[in-house]
Amino acid sequence: MRFDKVIAGGTVVTPGGTFVGDVGIIGEKIAALGTELDDEGADFIPATGHLVLPGVLDVHVHLELPFCGTVSADDYRTGTRAGARGGVTTVIDFAIPSAGGTLAQAADTWMRKAEGKSLIDYTFHICITRWQEQKDQIADMVARGFTTFKEFMIYESEGWQSDDRALFGTLEQMREHGAMLLVHAESARVLDELIARHHTPEEMQRWGAQLHRITRPNFIEAEAIERAVRWCEVTGGQLYIVHMSTAEGTDIVRAAQARGVPVLAETCVQYLVLDDSVFERPDGHLFACCPQLKGRNDIDRLWEGLRRGEVSVVSTDTCTFTREQKAMWNGDWTKIPMGMPGLETLLPLTYTQGVLGGRLSLEEMVRKLSTNPARIMGLAPRKGAIQVGADADVAIIHPTSTRRVDPAEMETNADWSPYEGMELAGFARTTLSRGEVIVDDYRVVGREGRGQWLPRTSAGLAPRSDAAPVAAPRDASPSPFRDHRVEIHLG
Amino acid sequence: MRFDKVIAGGTVVTPGGTFVGDVGIIGEKIAALGTELDDEGADFIPATGHLVLPGVLDVHVHLELPFCGTVSADDYRTGTRAGARGGVTTVIDFAIPSAGGTLAQAADTWMRKAEGKSLIDYTFHICITRWQEQKDQIADMVARGFTTFKEFMIYESEGWQSDDRALFGTLEQMREHGAMLLVHAESARVLDELIARHHTPEEMQRWGAQLHRITRPNFIEAEAIERAVRWCEVTGGQLYIVHMSTAEGTDIVRAAQARGVPVLAETCVQYLVLDDSVFERPDGHLFACCPQLKGRNDIDRLWEGLRRGEVSVVSTDTCTFTREQKAMWNGDWTKIPMGMPGLETLLPLTYTQGVLGGRLSLEEMVRKLSTNPARIMGLAPRKGAIQVGADADVAIIHPTSTRRVDPAEMETNADWSPYEGMELAGFARTTLSRGEVIVDDYRVVGREGRGQWLPRTSAGLAPRSDAAPVAAPRDASPSPFRDHRVEIHLG
Amino acid sequence: MRFDKVIAGGTVVTPGGTFVGDVGIIGEKIAALGTELDDEGADFIPATGHLVLPGVLDVHVHLELPFCGTVSADDYRTGTRAGARGGVTTVIDFAIPSAGGTLAQAADTWMRKAEGKSLIDYTFHICITRWQEQKDQIADMVARGFTTFKEFMIYESEGWQSDDRALFGTLEQMREHGAMLLVHAESARVLDELIARHHTPEEMQRWGAQLHRITRPNFIEAEAIERAVRWCEVTGGQLYIVHMSTAEGTDIVRAAQARGVPVLAETCVQYLVLDDSVFERPDGHLFACCPQLKGRNDIDRLWEGLRRGEVSVVSTDTCTFTREQKAMWNGDWTKIPMGMPGLETLLPLTYTQGVLGGRLSLEEMVRKLSTNPARIMGLAPRKGAIQVGADADVAIIHPTSTRRVDPAEMETNADWSPYEGMELAGFARTTLSRGEVIVDDYRVVGREGRGQWLPRTSAGLAPRSDAAPVAAPRDASPSPFRDHRVEIHLG
Amino acid sequence: MRFDKVIAGGTVVTPGGTFVGDVGIIGEKIAALGTELDDEGADFIPATGHLVLPGVLDVHVHLELPFCGTVSADDYRTGTRAGARGGVTTVIDFAIPSAGGTLAQAADTWMRKAEGKSLIDYTFHICITRWQEQKDQIADMVARGFTTFKEFMIYESEGWQSDDRALFGTLEQMREHGAMLLVHAESARVLDELIARHHTPEEMQRWGAQLHRITRPNFIEAEAIERAVRWCEVTGGQLYIVHMSTAEGTDIVRAAQARGVPVLAETCVQYLVLDDSVFERPDGHLFACCPQLKGRNDIDRLWEGLRRGEVSVVSTDTCTFTREQKAMWNGDWTKIPMGMPGLETLLPLTYTQGVLGGRLSLEEMVRKLSTNPARIMGLAPRKGAIQVGADADVAIIHPTSTRRVDPAEMETNADWSPYEGMELAGFARTTLSRGEVIVDDYRVVGREGRGQWLPRTSAGLAPRSDAAPVAAPRDASPSPFRDHRVEIHLG
Repeated sequence: MRFDKVIAGGTVVTPGGTFVGDVGIIGEKIAALGTELDDEGADFIPATGHLVLPGVLDVHVHLELPFCGTVSADDYRTGTRAGARGGVTTVIDFAIPSAGGTLAQAADTWMRKAEGKSLIDYTFHICITRWQEQKDQIADMVARGFTTFKEFMIYESEGWQSDDRALFGTLEQMREHGAMLLVHAESARVLDELIARHHTPEEMQRWGAQLHRITRPNFIEAEAIERAVRWCEVTGGQLYIVHMSTAEGTDIVRAAQARGVPVLAETCVQYLVLDDSVFERPDGHLFACCPQLKGRNDIDRLWEGLRRGEVSVVSTDTCTFTREQKAMWNGDWTKIPMGMPGLETLLPLTYTQGVLGGRLSLEEMVRKLSTNPARIMGLAPRKGAIQVGADADVAIIHPTSTRRVDPAEMETNADWSPYEGMELAGFARTTLSRGEVIVDDYRVVGREGRGQWLPRTSAGLAPRSDAAPVAAPRDASPSPFRDHRVEIHLG
Repeated sequence: MRFDKVIAGGTVVTPGGTFVGDVGIIGEKIAALGTELDDEGADFIPATGHLVLPGVLDVHVHLELPFCGTVSADDYRTGTRAGARGGVTTVIDFAIPSAGGTLAQAADTWMRKAEGKSLIDYTFHICITRWQEQKDQIADMVARGFTTFKEFMIYESEGWQSDDRALFGTLEQMREHGAMLLVHAESARVLDELIARHHTPEEMQRWGAQLHRITRPNFIEAEAIERAVRWCEVTGGQLYIVHMSTAEGTDIVRAAQARGVPVLAETCVQYLVLDDSVFERPDGHLFACCPQLKGRNDIDRLWEGLRRGEVSVVSTDTCTFTREQKAMWNGDWTKIPMGMPGLETLLPLTYTQGVLGGRLSLEEMVRKLSTNPARIMGLAPRKGAIQVGADADVAIIHPTSTRRVDPAEMETNADWSPYEGMELAGFARTTLSRGEVIVDDYRVVGREGRGQWLPRTSAGLAPRSDAAPVAAPRDASPSPFRDHRVEIHLG
Repeated sequence: MRFDKVIAGGTVVTPGGTFVGDVGIIGEKIAALGTELDDEGADFIPATGHLVLPGVLDVHVHLELPFCGTVSADDYRTGTRAGARGGVTTVIDFAIPSAGGTLAQAADTWMRKAEGKSLIDYTFHICITRWQEQKDQIADMVARGFTTFKEFMIYESEGWQSDDRALFGTLEQMREHGAMLLVHAESARVLDELIARHHTPEEMQRWGAQLHRITRPNFIEAEAIERAVRWCEVTGGQLYIVHMSTAEGTDIVRAAQARGVPVLAETCVQYLVLDDSVFERPDGHLFACCPQLKGRNDIDRLWEGLRRGEVSVVSTDTCTFTREQKAMWNGDWTKIPMGMPGLETLLPLTYTQGVLGGRLSLEEMVRKLSTNPARIMGLAPRKGAIQVGADADVAIIHPTSTRRVDPAEMETNADWSPYEGMELAGFARTTLSRGEVIVDDYRVVGREGRGQWLPRTSAGLAPRSDAAPVAAPRDASPSPFRDHRVEIHLG
Repeated sequence: MRFDKVIAGGTVVTPGGTFVGDVGIIGEKIAALGTELDDEGADFIPATGHLVLPGVLDVHVHLELPFCGTVSADDYRTGTRAGARGGVTTVIDFAIPSAGGTLAQAADTWMRKAEGKSLIDYTFHICITRWQEQKDQIADMVARGFTTFKEFMIYESEGWQSDDRALFGTLEQMREHGAMLLVHAESARVLDELIARHHTPEEMQRWGAQLHRITRPNFIEAEAIERAVRWCEVTGGQLYIVHMSTAEGTDIVRAAQARGVPVLAETCVQYLVLDDSVFERPDGHLFACCPQLKGRNDIDRLWEGLRRGEVSVVSTDTCTFTREQKAMWNGDWTKIPMGMPGLETLLPLTYTQGVLGGRLSLEEMVRKLSTNPARIMGLAPRKGAIQVGADADVAIIHPTSTRRVDPAEMETNADWSPYEGMELAGFARTTLSRGEVIVDDYRVVGREGRGQWLPRTSAGLAPRSDAAPVAAPRDASPSPFRDHRVEIHLG
């Protein structure tokens, strides 16, 4: 007996192309790819007529998050079960410091949320909410295996907001540590102004949940991305724009990459499949997330960005709230708990609308859901691809058979779904995590708590350029301003 | 007798070209240009062998300004006498509200500073320092004849700093009123960080006044200009970047104008003739102004910008401090009163280094010192050009004869000059203000207080574009977000 | 008596602005501008209620041209009378060498066509049709006062076509002599292919005159402009694109100017007011000119180009053919004599559709019709502006009163007009040429043959750039390839 | 026994990353990748301590080519033996029609050159030399399995030159057939002019072989690339620039790809490792190839282009001439047989200077030498990568051990080498072609004539864009010009 398990006869998608054949597994690892790997004694997982994909990494989730006056409704148990059913084998959540807490305490808190509950592997981005206090804690977190950090450009009332000083200083540290900064990019002060103008009884009466989009024109995101990109260019620190939702933002990122700025971008699947006309529905408030859904032009531009390459990752920003929680809004859009369930439908939506819809090739989809997130988040070559030596994290899906989205049958705690009623292909018939079958015949069979924390030593995947490093000093002389005498290149 | 005065036989520079001939004056106005205008009975001002230029408008001056813990040393008496000797016939100062004061009170305060003292005509830009309080006063100021406003992106400790909300809201109002917003563009938060890093005894001991440049790398200005330009583009409100000092800023303005954004830019003559090596001098602190002097590359780019057109105006940012005032710094660069004398040398420096130095044609210089400032600030056709019907504001200079800059002989109250010892052509042999000779044979002969306040009804001179107005709504439907559903065009 | 003539009380448009007043004339020259210039004894030309404009320069005309198997129907007598009635006071025609002839012979031939016939002043562009033979004659033509040359990128069958070698070599010579090359930019070989594909009885039967546009898609002009611009950039020789008709070409010129390439562009008034839907008319063949009329998008882009500045000049490409001559086509679009009458309606069309239509200010129109052509063609300051010392070439028009275009009443020999039936303002009530009234009360009163040839010593008006001269060698070492080791800058 | 052969224990480079392990081969195909694939009975090819790479595709070679009055000195026997020793397992040559010959006859002629001689697999690009005659033969060649065509923009004297008409028409056909046009881009007419200027006894005496570069400044290539790109953009036909050698060309290609134009580019290894200072050597004429070697700046830009992606392929343009053949020049650079040997050193040079020199990662090199050429030329997934199901074409090299380039020991018929004396790593210790060992211990062991012709059904790999197809008509109405009413997008 050579292999413990053999996934046999499927259409296997690897970074080098797609072949019909087998995947041999020994222990937790992929040991071979080939034809005729079938072995007496090995467990036989038939995949004939199915697609054999690397497990999906959802690198943007919030589980059991205290937010908007409540706590998000999926925890590590339900959230990761939902994920597994959608072929997700790794999640990255955000550890957010409490009011007076340190980065390490935040990491500890989130470790405790996951331990004993998570069905799949996980790690965390560390949120920097008060940079002046926390800046000296960053190096320790990197040493401890956390190489990705996050700052919010809004959420002053939550105590999370970072200003330009924090962005600039953190990006400098990212360069120093080989780490990466994720940024929620919306322009706080002008957003405040627009909200204030509309936050009147008359307006709320008239426009309801539509005020969520009315107060967030596209330039709110675009200006913030432009500013973050500028600090990225000046410092040379690796930047990653989370949940990018606008055509304008996509254009800015593309232009920056073209001139060699180390910036990457992610969108979320909801920005690819839903548009802001939902806010006109009677239950439009359910769809409030942040940033909010945008227009058809934005949707088209984001798909194009995925194809052309300026958008590297699709994630979910999962932050589940039930109908009851959403009802807290009571007509005031500023009080809606912002977020939606997502882990269970990431792969089905992307596969159905992307691959079956003719917008992405199968290989392109795998790059955006697995290979790129793994490389960018410092988890490659362990995660993200079906290749010899990698963790045997695999999602096996049927290429055409569909299931109707029905919250009653889903693993998430949500009692509704933004995609309710859609017929989607791409749910996992079988999911393997480190060689273990955790979803079988579309049902979760793995045990909770088996998931492991994933330490990392690097992050980022800047567009490679031959040009002098963007943030290089004009001269190398040991003067106190050397770090800042940089060239800004404008297109 | 046809004319009251005839300036005879000079080389007259008009927007339509240069001719040798006469300028006929009746009362306060230019009544004719031509040859053979000599008239019996008219006062005869010989100009043979001289250049006859329109009087200069210095649209960026601070006279008698409380700043940095003292009061700037030139008031309307000495400041405008200095100006007249340099061919300046109009100044625009900045009326800055006191801690609790209104815009109107600020205007009143500055009117009182000028009345009875000013030798030449004047008006004021109205500074908005607390937009939320002052926003409803803007329309009244426009109605009263003030069409230019200013916001500072730094100076939090002075109580002057505006954030993005104020910039955005003010630019919207500028569009509504046909007014213009001047912006001091430096990026406050990152500047704070850089100052904080170096504000230690060791650093100050080691670097002294050089910390002024060390803590203000070029991107401090560039990022702020980029952001102001973005709000300009989004709102469609006319923007004017004051005292632009960097190559990067110039590039940003050029790119914005090319895509039709209504932004204009001014530089000051010190940024064209001095570089930041002065901070290495023992008396380097004298040269502290804000923004600070930059490098040779910036100087070259600004001259290029004047020629190519993205820089429209040269001014001085006159804000005089004496050696004694400057000594207040006592080794801490953050305590230097920032500013330098300038009115007296604006034309001589620009003429000598620009025209005689081969960087600008005579006609180009006249545009940057007179014609453009007049048009942009809403003072044309009354001011800014030698043309029939305009005010007879004229500077007559010798084309080559030079004078050495010597503070002892100057009209300014400064007891030093940044240009001390330079041999400059271009001091006014004769200056006329509204038909009256106020400088004769290089000596001031006009009486103080004869200058008049200049009311205005418009401002701005956006690069004209056929494209749909930048800030136009995507659609014209009467929805509450129409003003903000704009396209952002990125190059 | 001070003045010989005084144009009194009009709204006088000068480069420095517009004033209501008088223009004093002594001999052939403008001697004064002003108010109250009325003089006993001077001839008094009342202009109250009228616009007083500089005479128009039509710098692109063909009079008495042998072309397309016939000879164009307006000669110097009728053509310049037509021009004068439309306020034109200078024409520049094209001297084209005969089959074996020299440049000098061509100039002589055209001199003879004009002498004794021309009502207004004139000169010629010298056409280079066989560069290898003619290249050594260029210096002599410059010495003789001809500073503008022309090459055609099409018209192989006429013996006029220049290839890249000729363009390149001529532009090198232009730089050397301070002269300028005008280029008819259409891409010959692909045009040949497209014509060949459609030159069948079936196609001609089906599409008729529409084949003129069907075989000349916009990229035919765009590619040729791009190529000419590249040779311009490489050599540093001044280039001027004649009769530019496409949006794409305008974009290319704008981009080239932005990077400092010495290229200028002209359009013709027909490309601003007519579109290619005329070819669908039964008499569509009458409208054949070369390049042909384009679409609405092109029209809009050309007007925008005039406002933004990348299009410097409006001319006519006058090349009159009568209905009888046009009938030579007999259903084969390749046999239509290409060209239309234009001189008489240049100012009326541009004024009516441009100024009254809100597309150009009055000052902008004057720049495009008079000031720019004079400067670019080396005729300033003698021609092109109402300023002291210039030739007294003046057009006086009523601002609103219109006349209907009726070929029967026009001076041109054409028995039709592309603009027949239009109501146009802007015909000259009075035209002065060098101080002499040649049109009075809308009727031509000047005598034929009074026009003079205008010698020149320079040409061109490149966008000024601080950058190293575009065509500068990489190094200055005396090697045989120094002229060609240039940098090509791409946007 | 499961596998016929197992390459064991090497560092295997696959598109999905690099692992240490085995490659199992059954028949001519790769059957498995993995660890522990060792099998009793299988042939065992030890690779421990070695790199296991996919065989190289040299997609630009000329074997036994009649050119410049002689015939190139490597035929299919020596040329493919040389290739195999350098790890090359596929070549693509150019079938060039004879004076009156058809495309099919050219293919037949080249088939006969290869058959019975070639050690490795091969196919041909079909050269179009007289488009008007040959255009109707293109579809047949595609049907026969030839999907790549070539046109030369120079070589009029050889009877090979294509003009714009041919480029345009051929690109239209490429779009129609899903085929690809390779273009030799140099600007013929200006090149003629520059050669003519220097083709004098004095110049040749003075400059010798240096005239090769003196007469070909970089813009000769740049203009031609720009023009070919324009026709590509207009037609939407897939374009591939061969042997790109200039920084300017690289910039043009990058800009075109960024706006979605379907253009790809190849460089040759000589343009990456040699510069034009060789022409100053006494034997400088040996290095004459076309286009000629360029400067250091070009070398740097081409390496950058490989990293950033605008340069997709490295090839050789192998066209061997012996010292005796090169001596035909006799002091006249226009008579040098242009070309150099290259197949044997492609991988060693790229590996040594690229990978060991720190300019490319190992994976990047494999993409440029194997994976990209295979995909672009329509040979994937059969060729170009080590993946299950592909042909077992493999090159096994030692990562650091070097050999000195010595013509005496090489397989090529050349009696010199441009790289003589260089110490290079990367020669093939073992080469497999379709599962057969053809190089063992650095010696060729395969038999001649075993190579097979490779039929193809597609070509091209355009940068994918969401934008409307570049060549899409403005409107879809059935009019005869619909194909040509395209938008040209300029950056």
